Amino acid sequence: MHFADRLFAAVRKSGNAVCVGIDPRPEDLPEGMLDRFSGDRAGVSEALRVFGREVLDVVTGRVGVVKFQAAFYETYGPEGMAALQDSIRYAHEKDLVVIFDGKRNDIGSTAEAYARAYLGKVPVGGRFEPSWDADAITVNPYLGSDGITPFVKVAAREGKGLFTLVRTSNASAREFQDLVADGKPLYRHVADRLAGWASPHRGESGYSLVGAVVGATYSAELAELRAAMPDVPFLVPGYGTQGASASDVAPAFDESGLGAVVNNSRGLIFAYQKAAYREKFKDNWQGAVEAALSEMIADLAANTSCARLAS
Amino acid sequence: MHFADRLFAAVRKSGNAVCVGIDPRPEDLPEGMLDRFSGDRAGVSEALRVFGREVLDVVTGRVGVVKFQAAFYETYGPEGMAALQDSIRYAHEKDLVVIFDGKRNDIGSTAEAYARAYLGKVPVGGRFEPSWDADAITVNPYLGSDGITPFVKVAAREGKGLFTLVRTSNASAREFQDLVADGKPLYRHVADRLAGWASPHRGESGYSLVGAVVGATYSAELAELRAAMPDVPFLVPGYGTQGASASDVAPAFDESGLGAVVNNSRGLIFAYQKAAYREKFKDNWQGAVEAALSEMIADLAANTSCARLAS
Repeated sequence: MHFADRLFAAVRKSGNAVCVGIDPRPEDLPEGMLDRFSGDRAGVSEALRVFGREVLDVVTGRVGVVKFQAAFYETYGPEGMAALQDSIRYAHEKDLVVIFDGKRNDIGSTAEAYARAYLGKVPVGGRFEPSWDADAITVNPYLGSDGITPFVKVAAREGKGLFTLVRTSNASAREFQDLVADGKPLYRHVADRLAGWASPHRGESGYSLVGAVVGATYSAELAELRAAMPDVPFLVPGYGTQGASASDVAPAFDESGLGAVVNNSRGLIFAYQKAAYREKFKDNWQGAVEAALSEMIADLAANTSCARLAS
Repeated sequence: MHFADRLFAAVRKSGNAVCVGIDPRPEDLPEGMLDRFSGDRAGVSEALRVFGREVLDVVTGRVGVVKFQAAFYETYGPEGMAALQDSIRYAHEKDLVVIFDGKRNDIGSTAEAYARAYLGKVPVGGRFEPSWDADAITVNPYLGSDGITPFVKVAAREGKGLFTLVRTSNASAREFQDLVADGKPLYRHVADRLAGWASPHRGESGYSLVGAVVGATYSAELAELRAAMPDVPFLVPGYGTQGASASDVAPAFDESGLGAVVNNSRGLIFAYQKAAYREKFKDNWQGAVEAALSEMIADLAANTSCARLAS
């Protein structure tokens, strides 16, 4: 099944466009989580693995999409990466669409190696078998088409997808992404190329397997980019902790409430740290995840076309 | 010891500026290499591990710097990553300077997590310990300063370095990197920012711990960028298989033959595939690595200021 069709079927089924970002910073893990395991590297990795499963247990049935931030698993070497692999498998058992957020980038056969590793199958003793088996990967466009088309090729073959950075949500995104060449900013040049990579790969939903990362913190650009790439699924970071509101992300959606997923990481998985929740969910961080998730779902429904997903 | 001082001490000691790129594409491994191990994932990973050690055995004492391409290890999941970890450790035992070529990029605390993971120390049970322990990492600048300064901070603290993509060696590099804004191409904007990140972090050699990746396939730009970033170490890909000659890379060096390392991956480690070597080194791929390395060292000495390193 085509990636975008799977992605938006999952969104439709859950009735919301939330992507739960799992960024397990060890220093933010709920109190006692690290103490359940040995005080060495294997123990921390086990804590990441168990925390991942426990987050997935809370969000399954509520949302359709999760995103894992690779950096926090790579932190603990192969042991940490094994925790990520376990979490991806567990998310698949729960029928969640899984985005590997690794912002990989390289050229030619090296880019193809990344694509095969994270989305496709890798050669093992004359056979091909999946390795990480994510549904989609985030990629960085600085190297141009040579760095993107190998991902598109593998994704098209395997029913997977990719999200290319276009406009990121951080303050210094402007330094390069807003430089104006030939009358338009760099991020529009990337968007225009991306529209070209995307258009041959549309599914029945009308959306392509080639997506874009467009930050919610620059709301006017979000609307502009939505218009420039009408058939490109958006992965929208920046909601919540990074300061964007539901009305800021509203332009990402089409009139049916499809076309985008809105990521929230810390604001959900570490919701127990929020002032409003700290007392109420003192010994129940999962309760805080649930409450924050319900709040976000209601916020998107009240302020975006996502309201139409529930009907 | 400051990264650039270590890097160029290694170059001086070896008498050449070659960086041996270890990109173990399984389909290119010497005949019989995969058959030495079991036909499953553990076997392929073991082949990567052993191949890495055998390459390092050949090049130790001949060169000062090696670069590992992460993609080919990530291909095989945590098992493949364990092979990479072993190779990095083994390279350190051999006193080689190790570059982790992963082109990582993210912002804020996520970028810092990558930096700690690959260059610094990570928290484990109240202590901090190294995880991957590379000497330098390649990074992608698309996200601006927020994505670079966390790497610079960790590198400065740990005596490590980074190489930021500026001008890559691939054909489509031009699509975005050559867009002209405010009278100069994007790659010059990146270079000018990079010069600013680099200048507070110079070692005794005069070079900074903040380096740049500048492809050899665009020789005029290489000269321009050398002038724009006089205190920035260059990691130069594109020599050999990608078509650049020693005269193309010559502008990367200062008059003492320092300032840059020139990477060669396939052209060295898979030299046994070259028409000229195929017959001669039929059952001795290590011999082909040695021969190709000697050829490259001689070529750089004959056509660049690296000749001065040997004296």
